[in-house]
Amino acid sequence: MVKKVAGVLGATGSVGQRFILLLADHPDFELKVLGASSRSAGKKYIDAVNWKQTDLLPKFAESIVVSECTPEAFKECDVVFSGLDADYAGPIEKAFKDSGLAVISNAKNYRREEDVPLVVPISNPEHLEMIGTKVSKAKAEGKEKPGFIVCISNCSTAGLVAPLKPLVEKFGPISLLTTTTLQAISGAGFSPGVPGIDILDNIIPYIGGEEDKMEWETKKILGSLNADKSKVNLLSDDEIKVSAQCNRVAVSDGHTECISLKFKNQPPPSVEEVKQCLRDYVCDATKLGCHSAPKQTIHVLEQNDRPQPRLDRNRDNGYGVSVGRIREDPVLDFKMVVLSHNTIIGAAGAGILIAEILLAKNII
Amino acid sequence: MVKKVAGVLGATGSVGQRFILLLADHPDFELKVLGASSRSAGKKYIDAVNWKQTDLLPKFAESIVVSECTPEAFKECDVVFSGLDADYAGPIEKAFKDSGLAVISNAKNYRREEDVPLVVPISNPEHLEMIGTKVSKAKAEGKEKPGFIVCISNCSTAGLVAPLKPLVEKFGPISLLTTTTLQAISGAGFSPGVPGIDILDNIIPYIGGEEDKMEWETKKILGSLNADKSKVNLLSDDEIKVSAQCNRVAVSDGHTECISLKFKNQPPPSVEEVKQCLRDYVCDATKLGCHSAPKQTIHVLEQNDRPQPRLDRNRDNGYGVSVGRIREDPVLDFKMVVLSHNTIIGAAGAGILIAEILLAKNII
Amino acid sequence: MVKKVAGVLGATGSVGQRFILLLADHPDFELKVLGASSRSAGKKYIDAVNWKQTDLLPKFAESIVVSECTPEAFKECDVVFSGLDADYAGPIEKAFKDSGLAVISNAKNYRREEDVPLVVPISNPEHLEMIGTKVSKAKAEGKEKPGFIVCISNCSTAGLVAPLKPLVEKFGPISLLTTTTLQAISGAGFSPGVPGIDILDNIIPYIGGEEDKMEWETKKILGSLNADKSKVNLLSDDEIKVSAQCNRVAVSDGHTECISLKFKNQPPPSVEEVKQCLRDYVCDATKLGCHSAPKQTIHVLEQNDRPQPRLDRNRDNGYGVSVGRIREDPVLDFKMVVLSHNTIIGAAGAGILIAEILLAKNII
Amino acid sequence: MVKKVAGVLGATGSVGQRFILLLADHPDFELKVLGASSRSAGKKYIDAVNWKQTDLLPKFAESIVVSECTPEAFKECDVVFSGLDADYAGPIEKAFKDSGLAVISNAKNYRREEDVPLVVPISNPEHLEMIGTKVSKAKAEGKEKPGFIVCISNCSTAGLVAPLKPLVEKFGPISLLTTTTLQAISGAGFSPGVPGIDILDNIIPYIGGEEDKMEWETKKILGSLNADKSKVNLLSDDEIKVSAQCNRVAVSDGHTECISLKFKNQPPPSVEEVKQCLRDYVCDATKLGCHSAPKQTIHVLEQNDRPQPRLDRNRDNGYGVSVGRIREDPVLDFKMVVLSHNTIIGAAGAGILIAEILLAKNII
Repeated sequence: MVKKVAGVLGATGSVGQRFILLLADHPDFELKVLGASSRSAGKKYIDAVNWKQTDLLPKFAESIVVSECTPEAFKECDVVFSGLDADYAGPIEKAFKDSGLAVISNAKNYRREEDVPLVVPISNPEHLEMIGTKVSKAKAEGKEKPGFIVCISNCSTAGLVAPLKPLVEKFGPISLLTTTTLQAISGAGFSPGVPGIDILDNIIPYIGGEEDKMEWETKKILGSLNADKSKVNLLSDDEIKVSAQCNRVAVSDGHTECISLKFKNQPPPSVEEVKQCLRDYVCDATKLGCHSAPKQTIHVLEQNDRPQPRLDRNRDNGYGVSVGRIREDPVLDFKMVVLSHNTIIGAAGAGILIAEILLAKNII
Repeated sequence: MVKKVAGVLGATGSVGQRFILLLADHPDFELKVLGASSRSAGKKYIDAVNWKQTDLLPKFAESIVVSECTPEAFKECDVVFSGLDADYAGPIEKAFKDSGLAVISNAKNYRREEDVPLVVPISNPEHLEMIGTKVSKAKAEGKEKPGFIVCISNCSTAGLVAPLKPLVEKFGPISLLTTTTLQAISGAGFSPGVPGIDILDNIIPYIGGEEDKMEWETKKILGSLNADKSKVNLLSDDEIKVSAQCNRVAVSDGHTECISLKFKNQPPPSVEEVKQCLRDYVCDATKLGCHSAPKQTIHVLEQNDRPQPRLDRNRDNGYGVSVGRIREDPVLDFKMVVLSHNTIIGAAGAGILIAEILLAKNII
Repeated sequence: MVKKVAGVLGATGSVGQRFILLLADHPDFELKVLGASSRSAGKKYIDAVNWKQTDLLPKFAESIVVSECTPEAFKECDVVFSGLDADYAGPIEKAFKDSGLAVISNAKNYRREEDVPLVVPISNPEHLEMIGTKVSKAKAEGKEKPGFIVCISNCSTAGLVAPLKPLVEKFGPISLLTTTTLQAISGAGFSPGVPGIDILDNIIPYIGGEEDKMEWETKKILGSLNADKSKVNLLSDDEIKVSAQCNRVAVSDGHTECISLKFKNQPPPSVEEVKQCLRDYVCDATKLGCHSAPKQTIHVLEQNDRPQPRLDRNRDNGYGVSVGRIREDPVLDFKMVVLSHNTIIGAAGAGILIAEILLAKNII
Repeated sequence: MVKKVAGVLGATGSVGQRFILLLADHPDFELKVLGASSRSAGKKYIDAVNWKQTDLLPKFAESIVVSECTPEAFKECDVVFSGLDADYAGPIEKAFKDSGLAVISNAKNYRREEDVPLVVPISNPEHLEMIGTKVSKAKAEGKEKPGFIVCISNCSTAGLVAPLKPLVEKFGPISLLTTTTLQAISGAGFSPGVPGIDILDNIIPYIGGEEDKMEWETKKILGSLNADKSKVNLLSDDEIKVSAQCNRVAVSDGHTECISLKFKNQPPPSVEEVKQCLRDYVCDATKLGCHSAPKQTIHVLEQNDRPQPRLDRNRDNGYGVSVGRIREDPVLDFKMVVLSHNTIIGAAGAGILIAEILLAKNII
């Protein structure tokens, strides 16, 4: 198969670097275009980047000459992954979309647009049908393939919704949901991200905008498509109440979340039924045979001191989510601990898996 | 004033070392007896202890010869602070009590006895009246002063109940209460406590027995004395539901808790009323002029990224509790972040302050 | 005694904040003027600063209105402590000096000027005679008191020279000296300082310019005044060879240094003689009765796993230096581990102690 | 090729677990026997072990029934990897050797026996000829293959000697050598290893016995075989002086060492010649095509802030060693920073690579 041509926007940043790592030796995509700020444009990537990943910079990327972030520079790309900062992503991603490009973005700018899918690929890939419908329609009408933006969810939202999706499918709506997060510092990027002196021997019980993102995004991701698949019906506050408390902790990678939830339908299932439901869940990407899809979508851990970020974050290369300590909750129905890899399933990796799903469905 | 004579059980352990530090230069108590295991007994304290505190071993304690943990060895003590491990505390503390000694214990063994006060000194010092009544009665009857045990609460319980007490006093009962803790490693002691390799770049989402302790102890501490002040009426599950999720994090000292609560009386007070109530609270120990009592019992912090353990744990020498991010909660009524110093107000320091209250009330 | 009036330049920065803490309730100095950038000038200090210290912002400083960093604004000051970044310190400190102000600076800009004393106050206070001589002369000539700059050494230099000074005094010159440092992150400031993701579970084996500073500054600090006390004679490479390797580690405060040294005079003293020499050393500031002077200048620790930053950095409030593991070295004569508090004796605290010495000697 | 049968002694411990991970899917060895203490013997491995690795327990090992550590239980093994604690290794390893088994041990017990090779496989594999000679001789004489022990070096010694070997080969003997180490906590095992409270925000400037091991082992590893290849001639103190200062730091994996060295032959080579020599070095294991051998034995890093443990420890899967900051030293000839993976090339991984070399040379 001829590989699809891929580009990365914001290639020198934290998320951009992750995209590059994940696209090295990818069977479906060939990364050809790297875009960054004018300061970097024109330089070889290796000279433009302050590489900060624990894996080495892949050879193939070293000598790619960095482009400006213009649609023209990316015109050969079948898919463009955007790791742009929110400060820059707005107009650039819009220009790319308007030029007919397929953009998968980690930025928050368009997440709340009603015709933009907000996708955790192991949870709500069906929201991508919003794009599929448009593309099919254009094809049917003999028009050019339309550009589009798909948004990756906030990193901590991904871990939160991962176990919810199978539970809702099997046991019906969740009416109350609380999460307290213990979030890794890698998600804050490195320019400068979280200062060392702020996080050593410390907790920062606040991440700007994060709680609101989690509470809102959950309602979109768990929402259903409308009849003509043109937009998502957000869950209302009457349908689900969500409360998040977010903390930054001294962990490099891996967001831990202590969640509690109550089902609308009472009495709720048993603890064992909840566990079985999560164990049995196979996400669509896995069914579609996507390259990066986890073998096991949700790992239900039985040891009482798991999941732990250092020991469990890399399950299924960071595409699998671990859930442990599933037990009854005296206040709501159940409580549990969820661990997800914030830069894989919570950011760049989600983008790659979304692209694989789009490819499997002939949307790109 | 002649100082009261004090002793410390379990003097070489983590809690015992803290007791010694807190009793150095204390205006009310003179520490004269240090008890430890047979392995240490007979040695000078400096030769028996592996001192691990950030403050140096006080000079006065260096040459005290360690005793066996027998009532005989402590007979001159007006008050005995117990930092014994739960494995040993049971029979030793009982023997001390039966010999007429006043024991203030950090061990969990007797916390659930109905005639043993379980006390967070800034929150429910009125439970000490159970002891006061017995002592007065003995005096009135011309009998010897009876021995007794007062239990210090679990460290994470102390932080949880600190803001609850003033709220309940002013706004009535709390019906639902959740807490997710991020607990320091100092609470686990150091023989060996939490291994470094387990906590570096990691979270351990489990502390054996801790969640049950928090859920149960809260119901005792918030309970009221019965008519003759002989025991505490525990709150029932119908009165308050409590749910705790406990995590160990890479913080040396200071437990952070993300709590949510719902009042029985609806509509609830406003956020501003909650804050004002906490700001206005003056604990009895402060009113009594106790030496270690916090100037400000509850610090209400307005910066959105506070409290933080490294920056706020030492407020009022660790006897004050910090509460921040007080805001409405979409699921319950309010959520907030509480920080308390686990080895001061959550352990040894609580013992000292309890003793100061007992002294102020002429119970010891 | 009427307190001397003090000012702080760079008051909102990391070093400036430390100066403010150390000047709170100081018996000799009253801090009246706080200078910062135009962005902060005109604001109350509490509104201008992002306070990051583990001690709370002292009340007295909260409402001081921040000034521009001009000599005019500081004209009433008997002494000005500069915590300015090297990027700004050059012209500002010069202007202050030229206006007749007494500046004690933590910046590196003037350290290598031959008529500027570079001082570790527990080690080479005699270099302050360069200033004393000028001031006496001006007085004798009926002239105005001249302005001057005294430079505080680099933080890691302070720890290195602390044990050397007594050794050189007693046993003669050191010919070879190596140090490998493990430096705390607080020294890097917080705008942004060392990023958390860079230092968690990591070592950074490089601190820009640090090794050169240590190697050069040691030769000035160990040098002697020339005959008319107008400048310092640097030690030459023939007199002492110094080699430093600097690392940043995940420690908040306290620089650890593994040093080795060889005396010029052979055979060298015994290990016990070295220890006794260090134990016996009493720095001039202590003899002069300076407020902040350490009771024990050098703490010789005998436990083989000490000094440790968390346990020993606060000895003598950070003004004392700890030396442990003094033993013979198979390559040079001796090796040992030195711990010094980088923000106290290595930065702001050194400035305060220098001022106290200047005051004791009637230079300010 | 039929795989050789392998066993692991001390299989439940830290080093044992690493051996199991490294033997999973190994092309040359099939791990069949796991030995541990009587407490574990008879249980399935998954029930006996407290698995603490960041990689999951390999499926194949889960159901292996743990054996006692007797030669009988391991009799089918072509090679036995020992991760036993030094407290137990002595008699067990001797019994295995005496029974004709081939033991590759991480324990320190036999490292100083003159007929036992002490091997860093990327540095002195030629010392294995001591075994090869015996085995050939036995074969030639028609005798049974003799049992033997090969000792893996101390973890910090491995990093130290890695760059020395090529330098000595090219530029002649090193006369003076100093190293200051910053060692990871994984090397201390986890029963309990380094307590978290001891290492958080801290340095421990002491590791029992480590400095002596480094100083002594270097002299054996850099020594040459005697004429009949029956033992190693240690370097004398006159030939090389070695001085080590060892520190424990808050790093999970990867030992950093700041080393300085002086060549016997003066003038020494240039910095560039030193770098080129290290870059050009290809270890024998790589030439032999051993499975785990590093592609690049020594990585010479040019960025001035490298190597860093988090970013560089996994080069060549932990079998490659990184060297950075090679520069002239004012005291000796050169200084540099070396990073090696303490549990791979410094422990279990070294054992595996030694076995691969032995296999390539038909010794097992």
